[in-house]
Amino acid sequence: MTSIITLTTDFGLKDGNVGAMKGVIWKIAPHVQIADISHLIAPQNVPEAALVIYRAARFFPEGAIHVVVVDPGVGTERRPIAGQVGKQFVVGPDNGVFTRMIEVCEQNGDPIRFVHLNRPEFWLQQVSYVFHGRDIFAPVAAHLAMGRNLIDLGTPINDVVRLNLPKPIPTLEGLQGEVIHIDHFGNISTCIMRQDIGDNRILQVQVKDQAIEDFVNTFGEKSPGSLVCLFGSNDNLLICEVNGNAAQRLQVRVGDVVRVLLEKKDKV
Amino acid sequence: MTSIITLTTDFGLKDGNVGAMKGVIWKIAPHVQIADISHLIAPQNVPEAALVIYRAARFFPEGAIHVVVVDPGVGTERRPIAGQVGKQFVVGPDNGVFTRMIEVCEQNGDPIRFVHLNRPEFWLQQVSYVFHGRDIFAPVAAHLAMGRNLIDLGTPINDVVRLNLPKPIPTLEGLQGEVIHIDHFGNISTCIMRQDIGDNRILQVQVKDQAIEDFVNTFGEKSPGSLVCLFGSNDNLLICEVNGNAAQRLQVRVGDVVRVLLEKKDKV
Amino acid sequence: MTSIITLTTDFGLKDGNVGAMKGVIWKIAPHVQIADISHLIAPQNVPEAALVIYRAARFFPEGAIHVVVVDPGVGTERRPIAGQVGKQFVVGPDNGVFTRMIEVCEQNGDPIRFVHLNRPEFWLQQVSYVFHGRDIFAPVAAHLAMGRNLIDLGTPINDVVRLNLPKPIPTLEGLQGEVIHIDHFGNISTCIMRQDIGDNRILQVQVKDQAIEDFVNTFGEKSPGSLVCLFGSNDNLLICEVNGNAAQRLQVRVGDVVRVLLEKKDKV
Repeated sequence: MTSIITLTTDFGLKDGNVGAMKGVIWKIAPHVQIADISHLIAPQNVPEAALVIYRAARFFPEGAIHVVVVDPGVGTERRPIAGQVGKQFVVGPDNGVFTRMIEVCEQNGDPIRFVHLNRPEFWLQQVSYVFHGRDIFAPVAAHLAMGRNLIDLGTPINDVVRLNLPKPIPTLEGLQGEVIHIDHFGNISTCIMRQDIGDNRILQVQVKDQAIEDFVNTFGEKSPGSLVCLFGSNDNLLICEVNGNAAQRLQVRVGDVVRVLLEKKDKV
Repeated sequence: MTSIITLTTDFGLKDGNVGAMKGVIWKIAPHVQIADISHLIAPQNVPEAALVIYRAARFFPEGAIHVVVVDPGVGTERRPIAGQVGKQFVVGPDNGVFTRMIEVCEQNGDPIRFVHLNRPEFWLQQVSYVFHGRDIFAPVAAHLAMGRNLIDLGTPINDVVRLNLPKPIPTLEGLQGEVIHIDHFGNISTCIMRQDIGDNRILQVQVKDQAIEDFVNTFGEKSPGSLVCLFGSNDNLLICEVNGNAAQRLQVRVGDVVRVLLEKKDKV
Repeated sequence: MTSIITLTTDFGLKDGNVGAMKGVIWKIAPHVQIADISHLIAPQNVPEAALVIYRAARFFPEGAIHVVVVDPGVGTERRPIAGQVGKQFVVGPDNGVFTRMIEVCEQNGDPIRFVHLNRPEFWLQQVSYVFHGRDIFAPVAAHLAMGRNLIDLGTPINDVVRLNLPKPIPTLEGLQGEVIHIDHFGNISTCIMRQDIGDNRILQVQVKDQAIEDFVNTFGEKSPGSLVCLFGSNDNLLICEVNGNAAQRLQVRVGDVVRVLLEKKDKV
């Protein structure tokens, strides 16, 4: 029996809907520990949910079951799905929300298999049109936690929906990417990864009309209020204000273009 | 021994007061799983708490203990109470916060019994005037979870305070009700239930100066930005904007009047 | 084996970073119950974190492990530390965040010992410069929960950083102190404690240009909208608006001066 289920939604924290999901889970699988990953995904923002669950899930043990409910298509033809991604499980709508978990898993050559959840005997008896998180995904996750096989829960599929994730593009001067996340502190996360930079030296990072030239390892190297670039804890290139809110200061949003000027080793 | 305690308060999430309650609970009942239902009930809003706990509690297993602390009368003559409502337990102030749970239980003919918590030996040794959640309700819930009988914790009472909940009223054209909740997405929940509509067809729903005529099963049936009516996951009639915030757009608040025009089957 | 770990951070609730910490903990110590104390500490606000964890921790059972990550100096020379404070444990950065827990413990004559965490074998294999909460503090807490001795995790130290906490000063008319916390309700908490007042009678409390003369035991003694003073559930002198937000109304902030006029018993 697996003992961990995580929950990621755009439900917010005030209405008790996440609480209802926990009740459903514990009714079926009373032993399970439940971790809230985030319930403040921006409403209907599937790419944000895909990023947040990827970044958290990779630190969970084998067998952890990740339920993600950011689900603008609830009750329509979009399929409810569950899958094994590497050594963990996922449950949610088939709208691309597991794209990052799947892509990294593929890069590592780890097993991936998905089912279309179409066995109502593993759902609540009454399924609403608008809350599959409670009525389908929570009970399915709980049955998985009780040791039920994935294959029992639905029909195998291999055409799970994927997002087209932004990737950095090489330019004459270096790389062009985009902003993929703004965190609670206002730190700006880009799609440019540590491995995209490699051994090359960053000369400048440009976002909006701002050029940042201080590349550091950590915040404390510069005084409060300084704009700096650094690699975040998930290896993305970040633009930050020391002890401040860079996104607010620079009026940056997800999707904005970011340019990196590199002094390339192979140029010489 | 029961293994689940839920917490619903208006304490917010920043001050650690809910954390103190968890410490108190685990000191007495270390095995208990604790679920946060909501700590963002609007300050002193007892009717909102009554709705939120009712909607979540009904999905929890038998024996679950629901602690609700929205308690403007803390430290005054208002009684601390605990009760059995159907197959679950509740603990909190005697201010009507369990009204919805009790009313539904009565409709189902399930057992209801309450005690006035007046046995300080089950409380913290020092009880403050202003935080009975931590000093009375949390330890009482923990003792219930350890198998203590309700009757040991206080004196039986049968005059628990109840809220006067809004109910829909028949009109010439159909029904008149009111807004009872605005959720995180801005969806507008009314006191008009699926069973109040029955087999009749909804012609129009009116709120503020707006008339909505699109009645759907789920959001994805209409394009983003459309105003629609539908039955929510708790069977209330909702007014929603697809992928948007209906309450903000229509400037609707809890208590606003809602009118439903029906094409009545029995009219013919 | 200890079974409770608490988490207090300034990470906010939307990005999933707290979730990642829970994954790390459960990978090492699957049996542990985890309680969120607060993740809404104002960014980099070490004194606020010191207050919040002190107020919550004292209600937890022996052996509880409190992880606090408000850490502007992450990745610099500031030391990662862990300690035993009375019968509980703490893990976090050496920046004063445990000052209140330590001071109260000292007053009680309880044991205090700390180690400088310098044994990377108890950390994640890859340690980022910017997220020691996930990479150092979470795994160290989990190892403590598995029964590992404090002394195994690092080198003993006795020069842990402490904050200079505000204390009330005697004046001709009574006491002068300052605002140390504004809670979710807008209640204003001061550094003046019940024992500082003792048997003396409060004549007036002054903050900004406001003088409050109603001293009560609890909110319900006065009508909504009244400004009152009372002792809070942690024995601090509070300034509150009944069913309202005193801090907003009086435009009070942490650090503002508070004066208390006393009718002193020993004056007669």
